Amino acid sequence: MNELRLRPLEGLPEIGPGDDLPGLLAAAAPPGPGVLVVAQKVVSKAEGRLVALSAVEPSPRARELAARADKDPRHVQVVLDASRSVLRVAPGVIICETHHGLICANAGVDMSNAPGDEVAVLLPVDPDASARRIRERLGPGRAVVISDTFGRPWREGLVDVAIGVAGLAPLRDYAGETDRRGRPLQVTVMARADQLAAAAGILMEKNAGRPAIWIEGVDTFGDGSLADLLRDPERDLFR
Amino acid sequence: MNELRLRPLEGLPEIGPGDDLPGLLAAAAPPGPGVLVVAQKVVSKAEGRLVALSAVEPSPRARELAARADKDPRHVQVVLDASRSVLRVAPGVIICETHHGLICANAGVDMSNAPGDEVAVLLPVDPDASARRIRERLGPGRAVVISDTFGRPWREGLVDVAIGVAGLAPLRDYAGETDRRGRPLQVTVMARADQLAAAAGILMEKNAGRPAIWIEGVDTFGDGSLADLLRDPERDLFR
Repeated sequence: MNELRLRPLEGLPEIGPGDDLPGLLAAAAPPGPGVLVVAQKVVSKAEGRLVALSAVEPSPRARELAARADKDPRHVQVVLDASRSVLRVAPGVIICETHHGLICANAGVDMSNAPGDEVAVLLPVDPDASARRIRERLGPGRAVVISDTFGRPWREGLVDVAIGVAGLAPLRDYAGETDRRGRPLQVTVMARADQLAAAAGILMEKNAGRPAIWIEGVDTFGDGSLADLLRDPERDLFR
Repeated sequence: MNELRLRPLEGLPEIGPGDDLPGLLAAAAPPGPGVLVVAQKVVSKAEGRLVALSAVEPSPRARELAARADKDPRHVQVVLDASRSVLRVAPGVIICETHHGLICANAGVDMSNAPGDEVAVLLPVDPDASARRIRERLGPGRAVVISDTFGRPWREGLVDVAIGVAGLAPLRDYAGETDRRGRPLQVTVMARADQLAAAAGILMEKNAGRPAIWIEGVDTFGDGSLADLLRDPERDLFR
């Protein structure tokens, strides 16, 4: 790979429930090989992953967590419904493990940019399947990453990471390879799908309405799924 | 920003102690505005941040941690010397907070790709100062990020992050801005320097000998330092 080029897909309409997002993306994508990074929010909207807070009745646990986190109890109920477990609660933040196994704030349930002030946007039910549906329309030689914007322990600021993939191995494994001097490489596994998501995030700019970024110049190979990116809890030191 | 373009700097020699890395990078960089992402390892080598393990006498604590982590006690002594504190120890891994405040495996002390099998490569003493020295040679309108390859909790695989910056604000703050429909943005702070480091990491490829990547098309503004990227321990939920 000698050069990477990233461009936003132009001309996408505002996406809503029932829109044929894979078809819209395939029509807007340039020809040739490449990786399309798509922001989770438009995938979720197209898939109708919206919950009106007016229809949510918060449980006692949601009310208790909402008080500790200083959040709307109905929002917290939606977060709990999307979660396998709650790792941390503090003012302004609830860190959850989603049913997919993702660990992130509010189980990825977002209130911003939603169609209406009182609507929560949930993560796709199966982001790998969402990516595969888009990839089917893009055709061969083209890969898809669904990205979302996560915080991290220890570091300020957010970066985009992959929450679903199709048509590329999310990890790039250098095991058995050597450096230029022939010594075995010790850093053996790069999170290729997360690198691509982070790179695309630079162009997504939160106020620009650019939910899909086309990346040319990446060697893609193999296939895989979100599960490849999730550390076995038994091997995790920070739960 | 409508397009991002990333290219490796070509023609750099193998870097060793005392080499004028800022001068070599400035000579190899294309003209015009851009961000240069430089891998920590070449910065450390040029700055002579090398420790021969044969000269290291491990302390009892280093021996004890080395046994728990299944590592060379001399390597662990170098790691301890570079650390403010140790967060976790497990087979194969010691997670430390460095004197800079970075939290990462082995305090960033690396044995791979070092000149000789028994030499540890330490992080730069002051990566922001290293970045500033490079930026002075690049000239105005050009920014520098020093990157290193870190693991993360919860997710498999490594990504590059910024450990030093010059000529750009490492955080991009959207507070007070609105989305296309005029609603306030809730995701307000992106880790711009980490996004750039991750993007450059795609082209650095661990076996290609490409320690410097030139990125064009990024709006850079402001200035800042590594400290902007480090979360206040009091506000951190995962120490």
